[in-house]
Amino acid sequence: MQERERIAVLGGGSWATALVKILSENKTDVSWWLRNKEDVNHLCQYAHNPRYLSGIHFNLEYVHPSNDILETVAQADWVILAVPAAFVKQALSPLAQDAFQGKTLVSAIKGMIPGENLLITDFLEQHYGVPAERQCVIAGPCHAEEVALEKQSYLTIGSIDLARAEMFCALLRNRYVKANPLDDIDGVEYCAVMKNIIALACGIAHGLNYGDNFQAVLVSNSMEEIERFLDALMPLHRDLKGSAYLGDLLVTAYSQFSRNRTFGNMIGRGYTVKSAQFEMNMVAEGYYAVQSIYELNKRLKVDMPITTAVYNILYERISPGVEIEILKDKFK
Amino acid sequence: MQERERIAVLGGGSWATALVKILSENKTDVSWWLRNKEDVNHLCQYAHNPRYLSGIHFNLEYVHPSNDILETVAQADWVILAVPAAFVKQALSPLAQDAFQGKTLVSAIKGMIPGENLLITDFLEQHYGVPAERQCVIAGPCHAEEVALEKQSYLTIGSIDLARAEMFCALLRNRYVKANPLDDIDGVEYCAVMKNIIALACGIAHGLNYGDNFQAVLVSNSMEEIERFLDALMPLHRDLKGSAYLGDLLVTAYSQFSRNRTFGNMIGRGYTVKSAQFEMNMVAEGYYAVQSIYELNKRLKVDMPITTAVYNILYERISPGVEIEILKDKFK
Repeated sequence: MQERERIAVLGGGSWATALVKILSENKTDVSWWLRNKEDVNHLCQYAHNPRYLSGIHFNLEYVHPSNDILETVAQADWVILAVPAAFVKQALSPLAQDAFQGKTLVSAIKGMIPGENLLITDFLEQHYGVPAERQCVIAGPCHAEEVALEKQSYLTIGSIDLARAEMFCALLRNRYVKANPLDDIDGVEYCAVMKNIIALACGIAHGLNYGDNFQAVLVSNSMEEIERFLDALMPLHRDLKGSAYLGDLLVTAYSQFSRNRTFGNMIGRGYTVKSAQFEMNMVAEGYYAVQSIYELNKRLKVDMPITTAVYNILYERISPGVEIEILKDKFK
Repeated sequence: MQERERIAVLGGGSWATALVKILSENKTDVSWWLRNKEDVNHLCQYAHNPRYLSGIHFNLEYVHPSNDILETVAQADWVILAVPAAFVKQALSPLAQDAFQGKTLVSAIKGMIPGENLLITDFLEQHYGVPAERQCVIAGPCHAEEVALEKQSYLTIGSIDLARAEMFCALLRNRYVKANPLDDIDGVEYCAVMKNIIALACGIAHGLNYGDNFQAVLVSNSMEEIERFLDALMPLHRDLKGSAYLGDLLVTAYSQFSRNRTFGNMIGRGYTVKSAQFEMNMVAEGYYAVQSIYELNKRLKVDMPITTAVYNILYERISPGVEIEILKDKFK
């Protein structure tokens, strides 16, 4: 009999929580690392995550919450990273450089390492020597909240090793989750990063009282901006209308629940970056993402008006009204 | 001095009303035909359309409401058709076959002539001898309600005669409306027809309790269905991510105000077609559109699962739950 796959999930947020639900319901053993000791105790005692998607009941026969990242990683064949991009370095810092040897790494993160402007997969390769063929990324379109409600959802697993992606898909598929492998791992990962910038822009426009007509044009133009960027980085025939790209963008840009959209909305209404962050008590991924993409694009010099506008608003303190006005005139 | 362009708008609905606002505010003379005599009287007396977007005040120096379609058309250089597709034949029936000679026809209709499965532009060519180069279509993304509120909107004017499309764009552009010409008139027109079918499908799925994750996948897959259909009808390199295609679809599919989405939602919740129509007291364009596209596709044999599902639900009385379940398994 084949041994059961052992999976580690790192992170205690809503996306991590939803993934643990999916995997454990398929009777896969999940070692689940959460930073907060009280959360681990609560999970062990009550089988619910007290902070996120707290309605989900976990079967502790398969779910093993832990505070010990070394042990959690050591036992696993697959390691799923689901902490915010800005905390990846800190979260992984206790691990030795060879801690991931022989394991498959799966990034569920939609962001880049701030300062280094690296995709998560590139960071794992450079800092932990995880080869590209042992890496996957999880792309949507998928609200964690809807997974909790068992609403029909679709996931795309990107990897240059399609057989590995398909193995991971098989671990995810169930009554309400469909999963498909895709070989454009970088395209999917960059698209997931950029969608948060676009959601920020949508929020800013909404905060400035622009309506649905403008948002539709903004999203159309953003698809073209993403395509130009991806083509410059790594030319490849990819159909951005697919659900891993367009679908993932739509579920974020049109969601009232998107933290990036909410953050943008506050900026559009006149909050400063600091006061919006303080008010939300968290940082939207797009805030870091736009700096990384903007920096990367200094070399590529792609025409990226939306990214530039969001960057100027968040980092150069240029008025949102002025920047969206410029976009308005550029759009078709 | 060049004579002022004289424009006729045929139709009294919200889109016609919004277009009369845009044109007349640019000091263009608009002869406005409305079927209902009381509405014409109300407009002449109070300068407001009593039925649609009734907040808009018209400057009667430029707006000339009338009951007389013959006179309205006879005076005009440009004739804008803005009646529901299902009523086009009836509305135009008083006109002689040469009534449009020398005029430019602009279709603001998002539908096809029921029974004949003809685009409006093809109908005008076949029945009234209006040559293709004297025709334009108006595409969104554009909610009439947001034009009334003077929210930033974008229009695309399709025509094989780009100079003519540009002339019409110039009549529309203002502080809150941008307009761009495009030569893919048939692609834009078919896309506008199909978006109503997709909005119906989105409504049906919503009525069946599917969530945002599913809708994002449905919209992604529908873009691919539209592309397959257009490529089979008239191969052409067109970027469907553009705002005249994707944007127009988004503004409809994600709108709570879309009549097609509302109609679909009722069907998904279990209303029969008749009771949904009775309850709404109107017919959603998508109801006719899906029959036309389905019939057309009998010849083309393109893989169109969404169109087929909506057709089966509305015309073959197959359960919405069963049809969406089939789609669910086909989608990626």
